[in-house]
Amino acid sequence: MLNINDEILRIDWHREPYGLYEPIEYTLMAGGKRVRPQLAMIASQLFGGKDEDVLPAALALEIFHNFTLLHDDVMDHAEVRRGRPTVHVKWNENTAILSGDQMLIEAYKMLSQVPTDKLPKVLDLFNKMATEICEGQQYDVDFESQEHVAIDSYLLMIRLKTSVLLATALQMGAYIAGADEQAQDALYQFGIHIGLAFQIQDDILDVWGDPATFGKAIGGDIACNKKTYVALTALQLADENSGRALRNWLSQTLQENTEKIAAVTAIYNRLGVRAECEKRVVELTLQALAFLSTLPQNAATDQLRQLADKLNTRNS
Amino acid sequence: MLNINDEILRIDWHREPYGLYEPIEYTLMAGGKRVRPQLAMIASQLFGGKDEDVLPAALALEIFHNFTLLHDDVMDHAEVRRGRPTVHVKWNENTAILSGDQMLIEAYKMLSQVPTDKLPKVLDLFNKMATEICEGQQYDVDFESQEHVAIDSYLLMIRLKTSVLLATALQMGAYIAGADEQAQDALYQFGIHIGLAFQIQDDILDVWGDPATFGKAIGGDIACNKKTYVALTALQLADENSGRALRNWLSQTLQENTEKIAAVTAIYNRLGVRAECEKRVVELTLQALAFLSTLPQNAATDQLRQLADKLNTRNS
Repeated sequence: MLNINDEILRIDWHREPYGLYEPIEYTLMAGGKRVRPQLAMIASQLFGGKDEDVLPAALALEIFHNFTLLHDDVMDHAEVRRGRPTVHVKWNENTAILSGDQMLIEAYKMLSQVPTDKLPKVLDLFNKMATEICEGQQYDVDFESQEHVAIDSYLLMIRLKTSVLLATALQMGAYIAGADEQAQDALYQFGIHIGLAFQIQDDILDVWGDPATFGKAIGGDIACNKKTYVALTALQLADENSGRALRNWLSQTLQENTEKIAAVTAIYNRLGVRAECEKRVVELTLQALAFLSTLPQNAATDQLRQLADKLNTRNS
Repeated sequence: MLNINDEILRIDWHREPYGLYEPIEYTLMAGGKRVRPQLAMIASQLFGGKDEDVLPAALALEIFHNFTLLHDDVMDHAEVRRGRPTVHVKWNENTAILSGDQMLIEAYKMLSQVPTDKLPKVLDLFNKMATEICEGQQYDVDFESQEHVAIDSYLLMIRLKTSVLLATALQMGAYIAGADEQAQDALYQFGIHIGLAFQIQDDILDVWGDPATFGKAIGGDIACNKKTYVALTALQLADENSGRALRNWLSQTLQENTEKIAAVTAIYNRLGVRAECEKRVVELTLQALAFLSTLPQNAATDQLRQLADKLNTRNS
């Protein structure tokens, strides 16, 4: 199997004007788990596809994913990504906007290299996924100013913002390898469910993760009053007193968050929120695995199973 | 012939989340001359193409063009566009970034509707054009902090930033209608040359235009020290004294620009800059028209001729 990371690092960004392409190179060389292109490659192998046929789609998905991170970091005023200054910090905001736009175009350029007979549907799948991700980002923004967010709305948002990219990577790999629609759908659903589990696990780690391995500061979501699965579950489980205390804490913007994080975490612990959320992660992971069982069983299916386990029992 | 403006206004943007799509509708409904989609339609008619075959490409080009305006306005901190507040003013900067991203994706969605056998090349043409526009924008940014800009570098920049979109609209229309490569190239070159003439005319109008018809404040380029074709020509024609005076004025950032605009315009007038620039517009327009003469002569060719005249003898 092609090493997807090598393939990403092999793309030559030494092009003029450097001011446009250097931030793209900087973003793509920063590492990351390369989960999305790997999913596309594995899905292709599951159906005996050729690596070189799916590779352009796999790379397009990774470039697209990094484009979303670049623009999201501008919108969130995030200063650090993968241990390095973000593009708008290292360069400036206009550079982050323009180089991000070019990255999105580069994703489409890469995508156009898939076998011609597959191009129309691959383009449709990509466009649908890209649209859903922007919609998910918009819902995420909308939720910030909404006092009440239903858990189902939150799940729709993370499905759009996180799951569809994983699901589309899998479906695209399978489609290019010649899988039938039923198999494509099963892989898509596998992707949706591990994506949801992944994001809820992320919300859990933000509260109860090990600071040594998590890579971000613990309690960041609490500090900025983010309506995560953990917070929404807590509000659902809370009696009147706990609910009032929680809503009170999660409406404050403070300079120093140590006390707030400790207080909110204590309420979460009293309500048994962690166990409730972990139960949901396990449920979603089992649902994901059930979709796999309808597919051919081979080394690729095993890899997907391992990936599902790794993503959702991770501590970082 | 389909009325392209009606077709643009017919697109339904009433979709959720509204926060994502309303700014797109606002941008596309604001009017504008719709030059690019018209060029694609006329080029198709020149070769007997069907309007409905080229329409998706024409709409994609107009959506793309408006996407570039939206993000450019963020980067330039422009507050007004077509007489209305820009998206980042009416909403906010994050909305302008995200809705702009979605507009770029919508352009690709529209493009994917061209006849399937034409899709691969249409996508390639579009990707090349989109890339060049981002490159042109980056050169424009680079020039701001460069003390010396050669006229040829400026011409390359406006070719990328303005001309290639017109040229690609024409080539795409011709290609979809079945024109051969030579004819596509001739139309492409026609587009490049009218684009250059258009931009230089714009630079002229910024100094000598009629405030009543120009639509923007006169002298805006002088006020912000923009290295336009007019300014670069003046620096080229200037003797030592005028050159020093000009460089001195064009390095100052002032609150009140009336005196500066008058002084710089006086230097331009003394050096005969306007005649020199207008000569270039005429030359480029004649070169553009020469490319047309190699093509079938029919109502469409006449329309392109009229358009070339209108664009470059305009006063607004």
